[in-house]
Amino acid sequence: MSENGTNRRGRPGYDQQGILEVAVAAFNEYGYDATSMGVLADRLGLSKSAIYHHFASKDEILEHALDHALSSLEGVLDEPEATRGRAADRLDHVLRGAVHVLVDQLSYVTLLLRVRGNTDVERRALERRRAFDKRVTALVAEAQAEGSLRSDLDVRIVERLLFGMINSIVEWYRPGGPEDAAKLADDVVTVALDGLRMPTSNRIEQLLG
Amino acid sequence: MSENGTNRRGRPGYDQQGILEVAVAAFNEYGYDATSMGVLADRLGLSKSAIYHHFASKDEILEHALDHALSSLEGVLDEPEATRGRAADRLDHVLRGAVHVLVDQLSYVTLLLRVRGNTDVERRALERRRAFDKRVTALVAEAQAEGSLRSDLDVRIVERLLFGMINSIVEWYRPGGPEDAAKLADDVVTVALDGLRMPTSNRIEQLLG
Repeated sequence: MSENGTNRRGRPGYDQQGILEVAVAAFNEYGYDATSMGVLADRLGLSKSAIYHHFASKDEILEHALDHALSSLEGVLDEPEATRGRAADRLDHVLRGAVHVLVDQLSYVTLLLRVRGNTDVERRALERRRAFDKRVTALVAEAQAEGSLRSDLDVRIVERLLFGMINSIVEWYRPGGPEDAAKLADDVVTVALDGLRMPTSNRIEQLLG
Repeated sequence: MSENGTNRRGRPGYDQQGILEVAVAAFNEYGYDATSMGVLADRLGLSKSAIYHHFASKDEILEHALDHALSSLEGVLDEPEATRGRAADRLDHVLRGAVHVLVDQLSYVTLLLRVRGNTDVERRALERRRAFDKRVTALVAEAQAEGSLRSDLDVRIVERLLFGMINSIVEWYRPGGPEDAAKLADDVVTVALDGLRMPTSNRIEQLLG
């Protein structure tokens, strides 16, 4: 346990972040409802009161974990590359950034994507997800309006398909696999923006037409 | 209950398919483990023994439900349009067909996608999903080899991203919404094969090389 250092009040063992990591892994493995504070204490080798020293409740642990994932995703939308320049380039940046957040915070995003709105904490997280989706949808609309993305698709459907593709990465991605986050981000942008089909002479004529 | 007709042994009430529909809805709502035969009997307004008249166990209900979704998906791969002609056109057909299966059998596919392999029935379903994925992956490889799909992406990653996008439809699609299955299938194929980006003169020059 030494790699977790000492917590902020000087006791040896897990700090708040260390407890969070273990809790998120347990929530993903057993489900949030099925993971009691007793189960968490066992996994941490701590007493329940040692956990309560850092978090007032299981709900507060969940809130911290979901905030971690959401803040990272929202952060991508606030980066300069997502706020300046052509909308299509900003969307490209946001898609790549989201893939990086997923890969870097796989367990936190996995937990976020399983939230169904059973508690106030979960409902607030869903609201933030919806707000994120709306900002991305607005970006798709801007890119259509500037003429850089095709406009024969509904922007909400486009946003859902794009993030359906991105979010599905949590189902199969394992750290240390053959694809790193940057290559995976390239792949997602290639499929989403350029498509898989090779240009044919037909298509070029159509484009020139 | 009259619309469910009489069952095959002549008793009034639900036939096997009718019980399956209600059971799948309950499994999706409460989770398979949390749905007891007693809960199912309550929802159906039947006795447990009336259910056992049709299914030997809850596990057998799940097996029928998963087989329903899997057979439909496998059926798409066996259609003439998926077995003859250029690989890129066959892939186009398979992507569209999968969207139709998802929309037509939303609750069955939702259940299938939640399976994690906790029982023999679930593990057999996962095996069939993997076999399906392998056949689609082989089709992507064929399309790359014939020169109709770009070959700078790993075929397994491509298959996962495509079906990540398609499978995510179960998360938000509601029957009777603004998009019907055919339009949604068009959207998926447009994103996947042609991409969202509008061709620019730059790109045309690149294509003309």
